[in-house]
Amino acid sequence: MKTKLGAMALVYPIPIILCGANVKGKPNYATLGACGVMGLKPPLIYVSLMETHYTTGGIAENQTFSVNFPSTRLMAVTDYCGIVSGRDADKSELFENFYGELGTAPMIRECPVNLECRVEKDVRIHGRAIFIGEVIQVHADERCVVERNGRKALADMPTLDPLICAPDDHYYRSGRAIGNAYSEGRDYH
Amino acid sequence: MKTKLGAMALVYPIPIILCGANVKGKPNYATLGACGVMGLKPPLIYVSLMETHYTTGGIAENQTFSVNFPSTRLMAVTDYCGIVSGRDADKSELFENFYGELGTAPMIRECPVNLECRVEKDVRIHGRAIFIGEVIQVHADERCVVERNGRKALADMPTLDPLICAPDDHYYRSGRAIGNAYSEGRDYH
Repeated sequence: MKTKLGAMALVYPIPIILCGANVKGKPNYATLGACGVMGLKPPLIYVSLMETHYTTGGIAENQTFSVNFPSTRLMAVTDYCGIVSGRDADKSELFENFYGELGTAPMIRECPVNLECRVEKDVRIHGRAIFIGEVIQVHADERCVVERNGRKALADMPTLDPLICAPDDHYYRSGRAIGNAYSEGRDYH
Repeated sequence: MKTKLGAMALVYPIPIILCGANVKGKPNYATLGACGVMGLKPPLIYVSLMETHYTTGGIAENQTFSVNFPSTRLMAVTDYCGIVSGRDADKSELFENFYGELGTAPMIRECPVNLECRVEKDVRIHGRAIFIGEVIQVHADERCVVERNGRKALADMPTLDPLICAPDDHYYRSGRAIGNAYSEGRDYH
């Protein structure tokens, strides 16, 4: 039997990311769960922020942003970045910042994987600023990189150890591998 | 040390969903990882499909779609729906279909959670059809519903048991809870 829960934006699991932008010339980071893939060729991802968020102005100004994936050991500082606004606290000293090819998208050295993105489209809807970005470069810790089919690729989830959220507002670790994409269903039917 | 991996759309973990639409009057389902939250009030989510995908035409025609979250026991059939196009195989008999308030967004009884959505904005970019939808109703299996703060809410991740994907193209189970959102960082600094 199904129960109606009303109108809610429930997607799970929720990837927790730190969205980086220069605001007033300084690195700032906002914790978001509103991030995902939109396309592969060219590589497109999005972040959705409130138009009133401090980070939003920095992205709109520079037309660049970063996506940083904290591992579970960064849970406390990541949660902190989601509670406190850059208007009220200077977040530029929380991490070791670095810049890549775009020059204006600050990234977090302590996060195992970082994407630098150029804004491709800026969609405003119901007070939200949705930035669709083209990924220009992916930076990853060497220990999180493997060779797959002759190319450098990201390691498995236990190695990346991402911080994951869920509709119950708990943080979770990733679990164990159970199958292969584009393979488990090959003989279905 | 960081290594450059090139330009790739890497977001993890990836929520695996079955996107439902009526195509030529019949339920069809496409397996996607390109789905996420965009806003909470009103509740906005998105799905991103290739413009050439069979499901895309159905969503554009009806201006409605569904998001269905398979549990891990649906791994094989979910993978199958990602391998085979609705053009080549009739997917309307794979599941027990049901409809909700919108009447044209088919949902999957076997998935523990289903969202029915009305298209709010249709963004086309680089051959992609990105449908931003307002969630009109959430349907959930009774066993996945708990009471939280006096309201009906979704249970924890081990109960929902979502099928999760990662950049290594493996499917994963969710892991264990490690903390509370908006709480772990309260005393940071």
